[in-house]
Amino acid sequence: MGAVSEVPDRSEELGVHSEVGRLRTVLVCAPGRAHSRLTPSNCDDLLFDDVLWVEKARADHDDFVASMTSRGIEVLELLDLLTETVAIPEARDWVLGQQVHPHRVGVELVDDVRAYLEELSPNELAQTLMGGLSTHEFPGAGSADLMRLVRDSSGVAEYLLPPLPNLLYTRDTTCWVYGGVTLNPLFWAARTEETVLTAAVYRHHPRFAGRVTEWWGDPTANWELATVEGGDVMPIGNRTVLVGLSERTSRQGISSLATALFARGAADRVIVAALPRMRATMHLDTVLTFADRDCVLLHPDTMDEVRTFSLRPGPRGGLDVRAEEKPLTEVIAEALGLPRMRVVETGGNDYVRERTQWDSGANIVALEPGVVMAYDRNTHTNALLRAEGIEVIEIVGSELGRGRGGGHCMTCPIARDGVDLS
Amino acid sequence: MGAVSEVPDRSEELGVHSEVGRLRTVLVCAPGRAHSRLTPSNCDDLLFDDVLWVEKARADHDDFVASMTSRGIEVLELLDLLTETVAIPEARDWVLGQQVHPHRVGVELVDDVRAYLEELSPNELAQTLMGGLSTHEFPGAGSADLMRLVRDSSGVAEYLLPPLPNLLYTRDTTCWVYGGVTLNPLFWAARTEETVLTAAVYRHHPRFAGRVTEWWGDPTANWELATVEGGDVMPIGNRTVLVGLSERTSRQGISSLATALFARGAADRVIVAALPRMRATMHLDTVLTFADRDCVLLHPDTMDEVRTFSLRPGPRGGLDVRAEEKPLTEVIAEALGLPRMRVVETGGNDYVRERTQWDSGANIVALEPGVVMAYDRNTHTNALLRAEGIEVIEIVGSELGRGRGGGHCMTCPIARDGVDLS
Amino acid sequence: MGAVSEVPDRSEELGVHSEVGRLRTVLVCAPGRAHSRLTPSNCDDLLFDDVLWVEKARADHDDFVASMTSRGIEVLELLDLLTETVAIPEARDWVLGQQVHPHRVGVELVDDVRAYLEELSPNELAQTLMGGLSTHEFPGAGSADLMRLVRDSSGVAEYLLPPLPNLLYTRDTTCWVYGGVTLNPLFWAARTEETVLTAAVYRHHPRFAGRVTEWWGDPTANWELATVEGGDVMPIGNRTVLVGLSERTSRQGISSLATALFARGAADRVIVAALPRMRATMHLDTVLTFADRDCVLLHPDTMDEVRTFSLRPGPRGGLDVRAEEKPLTEVIAEALGLPRMRVVETGGNDYVRERTQWDSGANIVALEPGVVMAYDRNTHTNALLRAEGIEVIEIVGSELGRGRGGGHCMTCPIARDGVDLS
Amino acid sequence: MGAVSEVPDRSEELGVHSEVGRLRTVLVCAPGRAHSRLTPSNCDDLLFDDVLWVEKARADHDDFVASMTSRGIEVLELLDLLTETVAIPEARDWVLGQQVHPHRVGVELVDDVRAYLEELSPNELAQTLMGGLSTHEFPGAGSADLMRLVRDSSGVAEYLLPPLPNLLYTRDTTCWVYGGVTLNPLFWAARTEETVLTAAVYRHHPRFAGRVTEWWGDPTANWELATVEGGDVMPIGNRTVLVGLSERTSRQGISSLATALFARGAADRVIVAALPRMRATMHLDTVLTFADRDCVLLHPDTMDEVRTFSLRPGPRGGLDVRAEEKPLTEVIAEALGLPRMRVVETGGNDYVRERTQWDSGANIVALEPGVVMAYDRNTHTNALLRAEGIEVIEIVGSELGRGRGGGHCMTCPIARDGVDLS
Repeated sequence: MGAVSEVPDRSEELGVHSEVGRLRTVLVCAPGRAHSRLTPSNCDDLLFDDVLWVEKARADHDDFVASMTSRGIEVLELLDLLTETVAIPEARDWVLGQQVHPHRVGVELVDDVRAYLEELSPNELAQTLMGGLSTHEFPGAGSADLMRLVRDSSGVAEYLLPPLPNLLYTRDTTCWVYGGVTLNPLFWAARTEETVLTAAVYRHHPRFAGRVTEWWGDPTANWELATVEGGDVMPIGNRTVLVGLSERTSRQGISSLATALFARGAADRVIVAALPRMRATMHLDTVLTFADRDCVLLHPDTMDEVRTFSLRPGPRGGLDVRAEEKPLTEVIAEALGLPRMRVVETGGNDYVRERTQWDSGANIVALEPGVVMAYDRNTHTNALLRAEGIEVIEIVGSELGRGRGGGHCMTCPIARDGVDLS
Repeated sequence: MGAVSEVPDRSEELGVHSEVGRLRTVLVCAPGRAHSRLTPSNCDDLLFDDVLWVEKARADHDDFVASMTSRGIEVLELLDLLTETVAIPEARDWVLGQQVHPHRVGVELVDDVRAYLEELSPNELAQTLMGGLSTHEFPGAGSADLMRLVRDSSGVAEYLLPPLPNLLYTRDTTCWVYGGVTLNPLFWAARTEETVLTAAVYRHHPRFAGRVTEWWGDPTANWELATVEGGDVMPIGNRTVLVGLSERTSRQGISSLATALFARGAADRVIVAALPRMRATMHLDTVLTFADRDCVLLHPDTMDEVRTFSLRPGPRGGLDVRAEEKPLTEVIAEALGLPRMRVVETGGNDYVRERTQWDSGANIVALEPGVVMAYDRNTHTNALLRAEGIEVIEIVGSELGRGRGGGHCMTCPIARDGVDLS
Repeated sequence: MGAVSEVPDRSEELGVHSEVGRLRTVLVCAPGRAHSRLTPSNCDDLLFDDVLWVEKARADHDDFVASMTSRGIEVLELLDLLTETVAIPEARDWVLGQQVHPHRVGVELVDDVRAYLEELSPNELAQTLMGGLSTHEFPGAGSADLMRLVRDSSGVAEYLLPPLPNLLYTRDTTCWVYGGVTLNPLFWAARTEETVLTAAVYRHHPRFAGRVTEWWGDPTANWELATVEGGDVMPIGNRTVLVGLSERTSRQGISSLATALFARGAADRVIVAALPRMRATMHLDTVLTFADRDCVLLHPDTMDEVRTFSLRPGPRGGLDVRAEEKPLTEVIAEALGLPRMRVVETGGNDYVRERTQWDSGANIVALEPGVVMAYDRNTHTNALLRAEGIEVIEIVGSELGRGRGGGHCMTCPIARDGVDLS
Repeated sequence: MGAVSEVPDRSEELGVHSEVGRLRTVLVCAPGRAHSRLTPSNCDDLLFDDVLWVEKARADHDDFVASMTSRGIEVLELLDLLTETVAIPEARDWVLGQQVHPHRVGVELVDDVRAYLEELSPNELAQTLMGGLSTHEFPGAGSADLMRLVRDSSGVAEYLLPPLPNLLYTRDTTCWVYGGVTLNPLFWAARTEETVLTAAVYRHHPRFAGRVTEWWGDPTANWELATVEGGDVMPIGNRTVLVGLSERTSRQGISSLATALFARGAADRVIVAALPRMRATMHLDTVLTFADRDCVLLHPDTMDEVRTFSLRPGPRGGLDVRAEEKPLTEVIAEALGLPRMRVVETGGNDYVRERTQWDSGANIVALEPGVVMAYDRNTHTNALLRAEGIEVIEIVGSELGRGRGGGHCMTCPIARDGVDLS
């Protein structure tokens, strides 16, 4: 299905030209030090849903990566990239300048924390930036009384550098939209550091430096209500971007992004899928993902309540906004020039559908048209996909799934082919 | 008690030279439009604890103001000051530039919202800045489809300008520390606008313009973890500032503030009262306030767990940090050169003490040495104060108290005499 | 309006023959010892919504009572009745047998607690039964080590007798339905004691003993899911009872009650108003009450979602169930033989309506046709009632209203006339 | 270690004579229909902590059972026993009389629900009793309007028979204490049915009928505050029973149980371990279990706060209560006549200890002295046990562990040898 061979080979290029074309290169981030800090009493503060058995989660993530590697996909691990990045003095300076400043660690510690981090090996520094630095791990500075104040502090910051367990979801932080990337201002201000680290890689790592077009986003700015997360952004093809208006991606973020994409000539249309307000619809990709060039998997209970708008370039750099009257899947089909989309609904009775939603059952990621990765536990939905002719490769989800993100959330495609839409 | 007459008259000056000296001028903000929007389902989002009967709350606030006015205290109402401020084009431009920008209202609305606000009368504009502008109140802009998108938006911002019910607590936003003021970076990012509005008054209102020394704080910057709220800052006299390290005021905020005060020569010592972590100890002034030159009212259950540190100017612009071994009240007495502090404990059995704390029983404000205002409902504590010779003027708290702040929270002294500590 | 004079005088009788006929005798319970125990941290456990300033609440309750007394209504105070009841040895034995048994205070304490209570004066005993007995107030029994175990206990029961703050809402516990009473099995098992105390009064107090017909309910039985609370039960006239199917009153409770009423010949029809599930619709009387013989006050947002059923005597002692297609108010009018009901909706914009609901704005109690008592704070709704010709007598609600119940909840009519429905 | 061969073989008898002696017969209950109903939105109501992938949980439970069977332990499955029990008319009558009565299903449905259940096969009936019957599964009775009322009901009971997912934890419901059993009144009233079902097995199943001594407990009575759950009851040997005073097992329950055990001559001493109040200390066996005749595994953070009391027969059928001054483990050693207990602490840093606690790391079950079953995920604690010479057989816990109970919770030993304490 889909004469992929006719699509030009872009394997040498960076860029994501569809949701389901052949995946060439993908960025992931294995569970690690940040997750080993999660406990029932702190996971809310660290914005992570549950506690993982880290060793098992890591082993399952290794298998997930191996499934992709064995199909010829290049899988880049963020820890490796960041280690290589912070080994470059200029990059390390930029990252430390962002992460270690008086408003975060305190004017009384800023020099000593910076000096401490400068001494670390690149790998240990990368681990610390991703995994956090607690006031007790930091060996201390100045007087003993100062460290008593720091460690006794009843303020919010138990960490001098915060653990970033949500880096597991590389999808959120940055997203490739056709030939360029966005550096996303995330919903929770506490997650800004995630974007800073990924931006450092794109700007300084030899694999990327000088080769990355940044469409939009500046991790050093204060974006206030204008937030966008990658789980809501899908470059579906035909110069169109599908964007979820969700708990995490705001109208203000979408209009800013769309304005930039249009101004840079990166796209001609943004389809906005306005989701109903519920925790389960954190992102569009928790309720709708693509399984094939003309096939989507969706959670019907949520999608029935979606309202759809199209944004196009308007006069004088403005936006032309149109409310769409047809259902979202018809709008998508029309935008792609397809007669219709095949729709697989996450299935079963009410109990099963709600659990499937909770267990990220709709959050699949395509490796190529008609081939997807999905959690093993959503057996009902996976059977429906297979009945539709989709090849489903399973991810063991007992631990990885506890953070409430699936294969789509855990992958940031960096190079992916377009698909033949003829 | 206290040879106040020997203290030089500073009534013509701005500046707060103690916690209990004669109050000359004070800033308040009556309940109004923002409070009329509070409902049980939105008050969490608007960061306010309960729902008020606004008419009654306003009448009780009027009485509170009248009690002060009748004693010769000049009471400034923020709405009046802001109305007069935004009547000045330069001031209005600055405020609207801060409040109406693309990251907040969206690039697609920014021009129209600004134009709408420019048309309002100064009073209506001030009311709108303080009381908020909902997407349904805004008469609209551009196409009908655009307004459908704006109003259907499932993102966080139901308001184009947020209601600011916490302005009732003028204490938080800015605080006068001896001869100058701090523009505080508040704990909740959503409250930044409060500081912007008050800063506009200090910078542009004819009463203040050119006469205000700003020690510290910039409401246009991103302060991240370095937060300070006025309920934690007390210029107790003798070039010493008592600061609570609380839920809302962080170590990072305190060290930044102390560094600035020392550099500007505004103070010689900051005493840090590190409070235990509990919601009830939002601010130091919820558990400790001054009733007389040598008398404090405190909540013993909390204060027993306070740890105390002193910050003084250190070498090369740094801070000298010392842990204090004595109880906080002894440290205060020593700093003021007093032999001891008289201590009134919020009293009664366990039930009464916990309720008094909840009902802001310790949150009194002094009008002059030995004369304080306190909520009527904390009868037990008020009786103890009177037994200690303190004159207690009662504030009706049935509605005003529902936001969990008392007389201290609702006042921002702008001119207050020092006290004789000899 | 309403030729009340034609209705036979039933002032000498016990019985409630309408929701709005002339009120003759009513049972209330002033705030007292139980409320003085409420704190922010225990009020959830004690099933009460907020903390009261007890002295003020009591004064406002006194005014509420005085308003009724001044109109010739006999107001009975539960504490007085219970004091007189437990002065009767037989009654005291029954109550203590229910309240002090091994499953509640522990086999090791049961004799000593009983002995302690037997020694109290009738008034102190009544206060203790209503206000609770903590393990620390109980002077102790047996060895010091036993009392350490009792007081250190980490189990649920900090109290040997629980405080019963919800007794304030005398409406819940028992309800008069025409000529007899029901002893209600309440939703929270912890509130069973409330029904026991009221039952003791009806069975033993000289005012009632031998004169009360008990239709239904046995406070010594375990009713499991079959719960009914008086706020859901309205003897609206014409041998019809309107009952809310709510958070607190279950289908199982309603069918059991209806079966008994029909079997005893107490009524011919039960109209079931099935409320949507929300905390705010704890009881029917939080969203609908009667203001006049042909006038109801209701919260439109909730009532729009009500479904209505009629229960009538069926074959062989069973129930005949019919779903009603018309709106509830039309079903009520038809049942009362009225052409239509006048409807006053709790009014204002979305903000006001939600607040009015929260502030018990719909929870009015009629003293006679067209004369009601309502909280002062719901000014908008009260104005609408007055515009409809209803006389509104205000109750000061700043403290009383914090428990989320209004005039209807705080009154248990014991003698009320019917109304002329011709 | 432990001359087990000298202990008399009791394999033909029912009775549990220690926590670690050779396990002969054990009762378990595999995940099934009740668990397939769990969703994120209903699991709180069903008193279960999380959502399971039932097929995987069942497969892991099968492996858990197989590990025991392969060691010669007889494993009885509750569903099988209950199927065989309800095939006996007298037993079925008793169970249905308890479960299907007017206070639970409603007077209007009681006959039809009973008739429906009577028609089911024994296996389907057992599944329905354990897995619940929703109003939509019940094919209906009487008129269509009646069923609309039943299904639209906004009351608490969406189920005519409630799902009982906590039956997975057979430990709670009943417990064998030396030669007899207790039928436990559980903390949540909604779990009473669990005890009813197990009691039916003991009283009617041919394997047990007439052979079971019931020490205490009556599942048809209302126990109010006198609750006991099996996870708190450990017959540790030497005629001593260790009982946790926990969230779930109250002082009133313990004193009632102890009084009965002493009166029946079943034990001479009850050691009470009063746990601090926290959700994580639901039961004693979540923080302390036995690994060997002289070795316990415990969570040090909790156990440091335990207070210990001993109960012994007192005069006139009363209890003699003594506070113990020594740590619990010393009291246990002394009671068993051992010089000391070896103590293994759930280990690791603060993060690991808290997670291990959450992941039921201390909730191990011994198959014989020095041989225990434990979840695989608590690798740190399992390593510490092995270092102490304990053989650890792992249970796959990815799904089973989500309900927050481990091997100890999931087993109800019915026959277990004593151990040699010499």
